Amino acid sequence: MLSSIKRFLIGRPLKSTELGEQKLNKTKALAILSSDALSSVAYGPEQILIVLIAVGTTAIWYSLPIAIGVLVLLLALILSYRQIIFSYPHGGGAYVVSKENLGIYPGLIAGGSLLVDYILTVAVSVSAGTDAITSAFPSLHSHNVIIAIIFVVFITTLNLRGVTESASILAYPVYLFVIALFILIGVGIYNIVTGHISPELHTPIGTPVAGISLFLLLRAFASGSSALTGVEAISNAIPNFKDPAPNNASRTLIAMGTLLAGLFAGIVYLAFYYGIVPAAEVTVVSQIAEQTFGRNFMYFFIQGTTALILILAANTGYSAFPLLAVNLAKDKFIPRMFTIRGDRLGYSNGIIILGVLSIVLILAFEGKTEHLIPLYAVGVFIPFTLSQTGMVVKWIREKPKGWISKLIINTTGAVISFIVTMMFFLTKFSQVWSVLVFLPIIIYLFHRIRKHYEAVGDQLRLANRVPAVPVEGNVIILPVAGITHVVENSLNYAKSLSPHQIIAVYVPFEREDEAMFEEKWKKWQPDVRLVTLHSPYRSIINPLTKFIDTVQRKASESNYQVTVIIPQFIPKKGWHNILHNQSSLLIRAHLLYRRNVIVTTVPYHLTE
Amino acid sequence: MLSSIKRFLIGRPLKSTELGEQKLNKTKALAILSSDALSSVAYGPEQILIVLIAVGTTAIWYSLPIAIGVLVLLLALILSYRQIIFSYPHGGGAYVVSKENLGIYPGLIAGGSLLVDYILTVAVSVSAGTDAITSAFPSLHSHNVIIAIIFVVFITTLNLRGVTESASILAYPVYLFVIALFILIGVGIYNIVTGHISPELHTPIGTPVAGISLFLLLRAFASGSSALTGVEAISNAIPNFKDPAPNNASRTLIAMGTLLAGLFAGIVYLAFYYGIVPAAEVTVVSQIAEQTFGRNFMYFFIQGTTALILILAANTGYSAFPLLAVNLAKDKFIPRMFTIRGDRLGYSNGIIILGVLSIVLILAFEGKTEHLIPLYAVGVFIPFTLSQTGMVVKWIREKPKGWISKLIINTTGAVISFIVTMMFFLTKFSQVWSVLVFLPIIIYLFHRIRKHYEAVGDQLRLANRVPAVPVEGNVIILPVAGITHVVENSLNYAKSLSPHQIIAVYVPFEREDEAMFEEKWKKWQPDVRLVTLHSPYRSIINPLTKFIDTVQRKASESNYQVTVIIPQFIPKKGWHNILHNQSSLLIRAHLLYRRNVIVTTVPYHLTE
Repeated sequence: MLSSIKRFLIGRPLKSTELGEQKLNKTKALAILSSDALSSVAYGPEQILIVLIAVGTTAIWYSLPIAIGVLVLLLALILSYRQIIFSYPHGGGAYVVSKENLGIYPGLIAGGSLLVDYILTVAVSVSAGTDAITSAFPSLHSHNVIIAIIFVVFITTLNLRGVTESASILAYPVYLFVIALFILIGVGIYNIVTGHISPELHTPIGTPVAGISLFLLLRAFASGSSALTGVEAISNAIPNFKDPAPNNASRTLIAMGTLLAGLFAGIVYLAFYYGIVPAAEVTVVSQIAEQTFGRNFMYFFIQGTTALILILAANTGYSAFPLLAVNLAKDKFIPRMFTIRGDRLGYSNGIIILGVLSIVLILAFEGKTEHLIPLYAVGVFIPFTLSQTGMVVKWIREKPKGWISKLIINTTGAVISFIVTMMFFLTKFSQVWSVLVFLPIIIYLFHRIRKHYEAVGDQLRLANRVPAVPVEGNVIILPVAGITHVVENSLNYAKSLSPHQIIAVYVPFEREDEAMFEEKWKKWQPDVRLVTLHSPYRSIINPLTKFIDTVQRKASESNYQVTVIIPQFIPKKGWHNILHNQSSLLIRAHLLYRRNVIVTTVPYHLTE
Repeated sequence: MLSSIKRFLIGRPLKSTELGEQKLNKTKALAILSSDALSSVAYGPEQILIVLIAVGTTAIWYSLPIAIGVLVLLLALILSYRQIIFSYPHGGGAYVVSKENLGIYPGLIAGGSLLVDYILTVAVSVSAGTDAITSAFPSLHSHNVIIAIIFVVFITTLNLRGVTESASILAYPVYLFVIALFILIGVGIYNIVTGHISPELHTPIGTPVAGISLFLLLRAFASGSSALTGVEAISNAIPNFKDPAPNNASRTLIAMGTLLAGLFAGIVYLAFYYGIVPAAEVTVVSQIAEQTFGRNFMYFFIQGTTALILILAANTGYSAFPLLAVNLAKDKFIPRMFTIRGDRLGYSNGIIILGVLSIVLILAFEGKTEHLIPLYAVGVFIPFTLSQTGMVVKWIREKPKGWISKLIINTTGAVISFIVTMMFFLTKFSQVWSVLVFLPIIIYLFHRIRKHYEAVGDQLRLANRVPAVPVEGNVIILPVAGITHVVENSLNYAKSLSPHQIIAVYVPFEREDEAMFEEKWKKWQPDVRLVTLHSPYRSIINPLTKFIDTVQRKASESNYQVTVIIPQFIPKKGWHNILHNQSSLLIRAHLLYRRNVIVTTVPYHLTE
C-alpha cells in the first residue's frame, strides 16, 4: 500500500547506471538554479528605495550609483564563481573552497551558514509567494500557513522524482517571468525614448540632498545586494550538469549573470525615471507595470509570474542543499545518510530533511518569515566572503598563469562581500545576531559528529586490534513463558545448535506456580534443564539479567559464548501486537544494549 | 535517572507477598469508595429543585415525596448490592453478575458502560471540583484545564503508590465533608425545631400546583437519582478489602447507604423548609449554609470540603476501574496487560489508562464537562438495571432459602433502575444518545479482542497440532557491510554454530566495488563462501530477501533451518544511533515479520 503510493508520487526506482540521464542541460539548469537569484529582482530594487526614501524623495537618484555598485559586485561574484567552477569541478562551492584554502573551520562556517541558509531560502520564498497569491484572493488569507506547507510538500515531491523532471516542470514559469520583465523594461524604455514619460517625474541626477551620509548609502547598498543571494547555487550543483559539466556550468552562470544584471538595471532605471516611491501595499514592480500598461492583461501576467517565481526560488535550495550535504557528509561532519542516493537517484535524505525543516520554520513563524530575510542575506554573504578569500589565498599560493588578473577579481569580490556582511551586522544587528549564536552551535555539532565517526572507524578497523578469540562453544538460555508451540519451536532450534548446553528459564511470580511448572516441564522435556527464577517483585528482566550475568561469567572462563533465544509469536495483523505483552521486545532491547549477549529471535507466525 | 524519579513518586517496589498489607480496613474503604456517592449530595437535591422550579415555587414541596422515592431506590440498591457482595465475593459487580445470569452480551453492556463511566467520573468530578476552587480564586479561572490535569496526575500518582496510601491521605477530606454537612443539618434542624426559622418561607406540603405532570415528577426523580451514582463501586472492589472481605464490604456498604440517606434527606428537607430556589451562581448547599451560619468560618469550611470531595470523587473511579478491567481482561475482552500488578501491587496499567483517558476527555471538552453528567448517570443506571435483573434471574433459577424476599428486593431495584434509565433517554435524549453509538462499538471491540486471543490460544496449544519436525541442521547467512571487527566477531560466532554452512552476503551498489570486495574477502576469509548480490536499485533488503528465500527453499527440503546473523555495533551513547544507518534494525524487523527466518543479532559494543 505505502509502497504503491510512493511509486505514484515519485515514480519507479531508477538503476544507478541511469544517473547520466538525470543530468541537466543548460536551459533546464538555468531555470532550476537561477530561480532564486532572478526572483530577487522582484524585491532587490525596492530594498534600495526603502532606505533612500527615509531621507526624502530627492535622494531617489542615488539608487542609480548604488545599482552600479551592486552590478559591480555581481560582476565580481560571477567572474569569481566562474573561476571557482573551473578550479573545483566536482562542486561544493563555498564549503570546499574555504576548507581547502583557508582551513577546516572557515570551511565549516561557510558550509554551516549555507546549510541553514537554504532552509531559510525555502521557508522565506515559499511564504513570500504564498503571500503574493493570497493578496489576490483575500478569502484564502487565513490559510496562508497550510497553503505554504502544501507548496513545500509539492516542491519536495517534485525533487524526489528527480532533478530533470522538476526542471521540465519548473522551467516554464522561470522563463515566462524573465520574458514578462523584459517586455516590461522594453516597453518602459521605448516610452521614455519616445518622450511619452514626463522627465518631471524624477529628481535629476546630482541633485544635492540634505542629510545623506556614507553610512546610509552603504546601508542602501547592502540592502540592494540582497538581490544577489542565490548566485552561488550553480557552483554547488556542478555534479548535476551534463558533461562537460564545468563548461556548461560556467556558461549557465554567465547567462544567469547577464539576465540578472539586465533585469536589475532595467527595474532600477524605470523606478528612478518614473519617480516611484515604495509603498506598503503595492510593490515597486507592480507600480512600474501599472504605469506602463495600466491594469490590463500584461499587468496581471507580470504579477502572476512574479508570485510563481517567488515560490520556485525555493527550488534552488532543493538543488544546492543536498549536494552541499553530500560534501559535508563525505567529510563526516553530518550523518552518513546524506550520501545515499534514493530510488530516483536524487539525494533523497537531503531533500526530505530540507522540506521538513522549512515546514518547521514556516510553522514556527506562522508563515510570517519576512524578518528572516536579513538573516538569510547574511547567511549568503558570509560564505561569499570566505570563498572569495579562499580563492585569493589559492592564487597567491599557486601562482598559475595569469594569476594576477584572477587575484584582482577575487580580491574585489572578497572586499565587497566583506563590506556587505559588515553592513548587515552594523545596520540590522537586531535581526541578524542569531547567526552568532547558531553558527557556533552548528560547528560544535559538526565537530562532535566527526569525532564520533573517527572513534568508530578506529574501533572497527581490523589492523588496529588483536584478532578476536575464537568461540569454543555455546551456552543457550531459553526464557519460556509456558508450554506451547512457540516454545517447542524455539527448543527444537536450540537443540540443533547445541544439544547439551540448553538452559530453559522460567520466571514465576507465585510460589505455587513455580512447583507446578517444574513438574509439567519434567514430564514434557525431561532432558532439558529448567531453571526457575522466582520474582517476588513481578519483574522478568531483572532476575533474567542477573541469571544471564552469572552464566556468562562462567562461560567466558572457557571461551564459551552465551546466546539467549527468545521465542516470539508474530500475529497476523499489526494491531494485534498491542494485545500481547511485548516482553520479548523489551528483553531483546535490554540485553542487546546493556549486556554483551547474543540474542536470537525465533519467530512463530500465527496463521489466524 | 527515570527509575529514581519513579521511586520517588510511587515508592519502592513491593513483594507479591506484601499484598495482604495493601488491603483496606472499613474506615479507609468507606472514605475511598464512597467519595463518589457522598459527593453527589452536593448536587443531587439541586437537580430535583431545578426540574420542579420550572413549574413554579409552589411545586417545591414535591421535592419531599421525590426524595422519599430516591431513598427507596437507594434502599433497594443497597440491599440488592449487599446480596451481590455475598453472592459474588470476588468482586466484579454488575459485569460479573450480568454475565453469569443473563449471558455474555448483557455482561458486556454492563461492563462496557461502567468502564466508560469511570472515565467520565474522573473527568466530570475533577472538572467540577476545579470549577469550585477557581470560583473562589477568579484569577485562576483561565487555568482551569491545567489545574484539572494536575489534579488527575496527582490522584493517579497517589493510586500508583497503592490503595492504602491513597486511602490514608484521602480519608480526611471525606470525613471532614461528612462531619461538616451533618453539623449543617443538625444546626438547621435545631433552628427549625426551636422556631428560629419562619414556616412562612415554604409552601405547605400538599399545596395544589397547576401544570404539574407525572412526566415532570418522573424527570425530577431521575435527576435526583443521579445522586446515587457510585453506590456500585464497593461491589466492584471487594478484593481490596481486608478479610473477611465480603462481610467488611457489606458493612461498609450499609454505612455508606446510611450516611448517604441521612445527608440526602437532610439537605432536601432543609432546602424545602428554607424555601430555597436554585440559582445559577450559588449552589443550594451554599445557600443553606449561608442562611444557617451566615458567612462565617463554618460556611467556608463547608464550601472548602465540598470542593475537595468533588475532586476526590474521582478516586472511586480509580478503585473500581482497574478491578473491573481485571475481570474483563481475565475473560479476554480487553488486553491482558490489565491483569498485571505493578511495582506497588496495584493494577497500574488500569490506573494509568484511566488517568490518561480522563485527561484526554478534560482536554477535549476544555474542562467544561457539565453536559457529560447525564451521560454518566445513564452509564451507571444501565449496569444497575442489568445487575438487578441478573440477581432476579439467579434467585428464580436457584431458589435458595428465603429467596422470595431477596427476589422482591432485586425486582424493586431492577424496576426502579429501569424506569430511571428510560427517563434519561426520554427526557435528555440529546445529551445521552451517544451511549447508543459507543456501547455497540465497545462491545464489538471486546468481541474482536476475545476472538483474537482464542485464535492465538488454539494455535499455541501443544495438543492441537502435530509436533514440529526436529531441525536437522543449520544454514547461516551473514550479511556483511565491510571487513571490520564487527564482521569478524559475528563470523567467529557463526563458525562456532555451524562451521561448514556459512554464507557471507555482500550487497554492492557499484560494479567496481563488487570485484574489489570479493578479492579482499578471498584474502581475509578464504574458507567462508561469499555471495555478492549486485543491487542496481541501491536497496539492501530486496536482494537479500530474495536470496534468503532461495536458500530457505533448498534448506527446507532437508529440514535445515536458515539463520540470519546480523552484526550490529552498539554505540556508547544513545544519540549516536542517529549517526548510523540502522540497516540492521530494518533488516531484522523485515525478516522477522515478513519471512519465517531466525534472526540472530550479534552485538559489538563500542567503547568510545
